[in-house]
Amino acid sequence: MKFELKGNDPQSKARAGVLTTDHGVIETPIFMPVGTVGSVKGVHQRELKNDINADVILGNTYHLYLRPQTEILEQAGGLHKFINWDRNILTDSGGYQVYSLSANRKIKEEGVKFKSHIDGSYHTFTPENVMEIQRIIGADIIMAFDECTPYPCDYNYAKRSMHMTHRWLDRCINHLEKLPFKYGYEQSFFPIVQGSTYKDLRKQSAEYIANAGAVGNAIGGLSVGEPADEMYAMTEVVCDILPEDKPRYLMGVGTPINILENIALGVDMFDCVMPTRNARNGMLFTAHGTINIKNKKWEADFSPLDEMAMTYVDTEYSKAYLRHLFSVNERLAMQIATIHNLGFYLWLVRESRKHILAGDFRTWKDMMVKQMDKRL
Amino acid sequence: MKFELKGNDPQSKARAGVLTTDHGVIETPIFMPVGTVGSVKGVHQRELKNDINADVILGNTYHLYLRPQTEILEQAGGLHKFINWDRNILTDSGGYQVYSLSANRKIKEEGVKFKSHIDGSYHTFTPENVMEIQRIIGADIIMAFDECTPYPCDYNYAKRSMHMTHRWLDRCINHLEKLPFKYGYEQSFFPIVQGSTYKDLRKQSAEYIANAGAVGNAIGGLSVGEPADEMYAMTEVVCDILPEDKPRYLMGVGTPINILENIALGVDMFDCVMPTRNARNGMLFTAHGTINIKNKKWEADFSPLDEMAMTYVDTEYSKAYLRHLFSVNERLAMQIATIHNLGFYLWLVRESRKHILAGDFRTWKDMMVKQMDKRL
Repeated sequence: MKFELKGNDPQSKARAGVLTTDHGVIETPIFMPVGTVGSVKGVHQRELKNDINADVILGNTYHLYLRPQTEILEQAGGLHKFINWDRNILTDSGGYQVYSLSANRKIKEEGVKFKSHIDGSYHTFTPENVMEIQRIIGADIIMAFDECTPYPCDYNYAKRSMHMTHRWLDRCINHLEKLPFKYGYEQSFFPIVQGSTYKDLRKQSAEYIANAGAVGNAIGGLSVGEPADEMYAMTEVVCDILPEDKPRYLMGVGTPINILENIALGVDMFDCVMPTRNARNGMLFTAHGTINIKNKKWEADFSPLDEMAMTYVDTEYSKAYLRHLFSVNERLAMQIATIHNLGFYLWLVRESRKHILAGDFRTWKDMMVKQMDKRL
Repeated sequence: MKFELKGNDPQSKARAGVLTTDHGVIETPIFMPVGTVGSVKGVHQRELKNDINADVILGNTYHLYLRPQTEILEQAGGLHKFINWDRNILTDSGGYQVYSLSANRKIKEEGVKFKSHIDGSYHTFTPENVMEIQRIIGADIIMAFDECTPYPCDYNYAKRSMHMTHRWLDRCINHLEKLPFKYGYEQSFFPIVQGSTYKDLRKQSAEYIANAGAVGNAIGGLSVGEPADEMYAMTEVVCDILPEDKPRYLMGVGTPINILENIALGVDMFDCVMPTRNARNGMLFTAHGTINIKNKKWEADFSPLDEMAMTYVDTEYSKAYLRHLFSVNERLAMQIATIHNLGFYLWLVRESRKHILAGDFRTWKDMMVKQMDKRL
């Protein structure tokens, strides 16, 4: 994996880069649509490529491990082949999903024992076997196994947990050192900074992670309920420590505004279920604010979904038609809204990149943050 | 509307024709995907055009009348504009849906009073207002308001009902004579033959309908539970009476085998929810038989969905992947299966046409009927 910085915004810490892997080029900042269990919900792979123009999508280790299971993915020759996706894939480590199981998991030094949400069967994730599962899934970028702490989190718990995440990181690295890439292309490993919302812990963790010398680094444990300002404060502390010349990935973030603010702090990569999940509830993101397309006010609004026409659905369908599809509960409703929202998120990061390269990102970002903070 | 016959199969009554309307050309035999309430479930309009290559889709008057309601469709300038579909649309008359409401409708000479399945509100369909609703929906082909009898049906009831359907037909025609086309393009009216499974009634009805001199004619009241042989017997009687030079539309039919057998009897147009509904249950139609893609046997079958590659999904996705998507209940599963099945149905009628024009339809049909009657 190669990462080159192409430009910096003079008025913020925003950067524009190019990440190159064996599955192609990712221009940063980038947003990665979430394809939980081998599919970005309601979207064909062809649409992801041609309409949304996603360079990289995310898969969830926890979900893929349970179904279709690693044996099937191995027989298929990895997730790329299984789902027929020749661009990049990043997999998370399952740390977040396991944390979400709350009552149905037990965290120990060795690893996490958890109960499947599908059939109640018991499984254990350890730093070693999670690396192995991710190797078999075959993602281009694989993530360290970490503990994601909740918000709010007791300081002492956050500290103990952070140290365990660091010890787990060493075990991940040890395991990967023994093993070549699984399918003939490079699989790059990103460690994860934890430390809850405590600046001193975040600083300590960022230093530990930076020292691991990985090709890219991630910030975890945010977007778990904390106020946006606390999130930004943590991102800032961490970005100032993580190496300049490596991509920085902020996991699970966020709203369009969160994304712009974190780009301004030096983040390069994002993923979030928000554009897809909210689409399924009829919420559309636009450059001028959010739309609840289910509202009666759109009933006879035959104007295009979005005049800015970021993807073909924006001009192909009207607001009134999409509102109708939601009101009769047609599947196409969610398909249209999902393509729109992902198209918008990708537009947002690409537009950010243009403005970083043009040197006016900060001004544009401030204007956009204001503009997007409306309900239409 | 213009209909030209281009060829006949020498060994059956199969015909190949070209139907031309103001929204374009429909080569017959044709299958019309069902877009109940303004959407073919799970399929983008672009996919209907480019991948499935549907020349005409069907809308349901009953459903569209209830939602989004005729006022909205009128404001939109008709259903074509509302859903952004510039090819042909045919609407049924609501007769079948109203019949399906059984306990929630009362049939009288004047019309049918029924209770909405949405909110329990009461509505009345009469031959006159149903013509008016269809004019406003703006379909290229609109259907007579009829009573669809159940199977089995008492002879006397079937006879009385048939006569009422004929009187309703006269009222439909009277109403339409007074009114110009709604949106500047032609809207053609098809009457419907009824008569349950009684040959003498079917004969009588076909003669009545033929005498109406419409530009096309339909056969209703079949595919309601009767054995296939009874359906074919009725189609045969009716097709022998309906004018040769007008298109014949067999409503609500059917399996791929039903379609081939009815083409052999002289039917030109079909619609059915089977390819779309069965797709949503994981049943795929292929030229070599049906596949229940949910079966464990496909779990590690990484071969293309269908080697015959009638639509792009057939080679884009593997059987194992589609099986996985169904097993995790991903929306994309139904989207893929629906495109496959509709693509197959359209392939089937287009292939029929080729064989009719080549003069070997009968032989090909007999081979296909055998071949498709398998479970893979």
